[in-house]
Amino acid sequence: MTTRINKHTDKIPEPTLRRLPWYLSNAKLMKERGEKYVSSTQISRQINIDASQIAKDLSFVDISGRTRVGYEIDSLIRVLEDFLGFTNLHEAYLFGVGSLGGALLRDSGLEHFGLKIIGAFDVKPELVGTTINGVPVFHSNEFESLMKENRVNIGVLTVPINIAQEITDKMIAGGIKAVWNFTPFRIRVPEYIVVQNTSLYAHLAVMFNRLNEKL
Amino acid sequence: MTTRINKHTDKIPEPTLRRLPWYLSNAKLMKERGEKYVSSTQISRQINIDASQIAKDLSFVDISGRTRVGYEIDSLIRVLEDFLGFTNLHEAYLFGVGSLGGALLRDSGLEHFGLKIIGAFDVKPELVGTTINGVPVFHSNEFESLMKENRVNIGVLTVPINIAQEITDKMIAGGIKAVWNFTPFRIRVPEYIVVQNTSLYAHLAVMFNRLNEKL
Repeated sequence: MTTRINKHTDKIPEPTLRRLPWYLSNAKLMKERGEKYVSSTQISRQINIDASQIAKDLSFVDISGRTRVGYEIDSLIRVLEDFLGFTNLHEAYLFGVGSLGGALLRDSGLEHFGLKIIGAFDVKPELVGTTINGVPVFHSNEFESLMKENRVNIGVLTVPINIAQEITDKMIAGGIKAVWNFTPFRIRVPEYIVVQNTSLYAHLAVMFNRLNEKL
Repeated sequence: MTTRINKHTDKIPEPTLRRLPWYLSNAKLMKERGEKYVSSTQISRQINIDASQIAKDLSFVDISGRTRVGYEIDSLIRVLEDFLGFTNLHEAYLFGVGSLGGALLRDSGLEHFGLKIIGAFDVKPELVGTTINGVPVFHSNEFESLMKENRVNIGVLTVPINIAQEITDKMIAGGIKAVWNFTPFRIRVPEYIVVQNTSLYAHLAVMFNRLNEKL
């Protein structure tokens, strides 16, 4: 089955990947309401996306619906959670325990979606040696040796922009394979490295701009 | 000048809006390094975006570069920060003081980018009446009367998915004009309401998927 999923994921477009969590949360909600089956038409009505688009998106995951009845909700939830990687815990290190970094360490919700931050790095003496929400904060110098003990693939980048590139380079040299970049800085990485940019500030900018247009 | 900026913002495409913060952080970095001018070619080299795209994006903001010299860095920073709305404080209420909501309340960084959360709402007795990082937590019932005293335009949505739509409807009925939706739920809103979706979990899903492909 792994092979089968991988075959699909090779081709799955990012917009589809971004929509799948919507279908997942919708399915969870319908289950809570006591439903046993859900069709793409029903999901469509609730979230305002074309039913044909939903059916197409769901064709990438290993589930098939039945005509007139739709998808069995429990299976749909299980398959989507699996597919999206929420059922495996992916270990990560976090770099930069500032305001946003500290906030992310306190967000236990990430664990329910498969991300477990097992250590954080900073250089501030008042932080090094402490734990935040159970996560130990190490001195940045310790990263390399810790990676030798406990190899993790994911690095969460929450440092100031002036060191964003330098820390990214160190992460990659140490063996990090995917960078979740929360800084508003566009980092440069080799092609084999995965980067996911989540700039809250860019989202804020879009929101302010759209709001100004309407006020 | 306001009119001029508004004229531009009417047409500015979202991808451009999302790239502008990159140019801003890059300009800040160059300034820190002692530079006085920066050209689109220089920015291009640093962040791997076509110089012509950068010049085109910057044509939406009220700045003009000089041939061979580029943009004056201080002006570029000022104009971008203004344009992106980071220099005005936009007041907001936050709905749902769970793990992520609490984390956002603790992220003072948002204020540097123009968002000031002035109050939060929840129903949990152990939260109501407390303050988190200086922000008072009110009972959700108090929202309507508080809006009458202190009208705010922006609502940050961090509630569980099963009440995401209900709380959105209440926010809008109370006068909220823009919803920053952190839930993985696709909310339905009237056309005149701005929605910015920031699903950390959707971003995680994309990252896990891309990482799996490469491992």
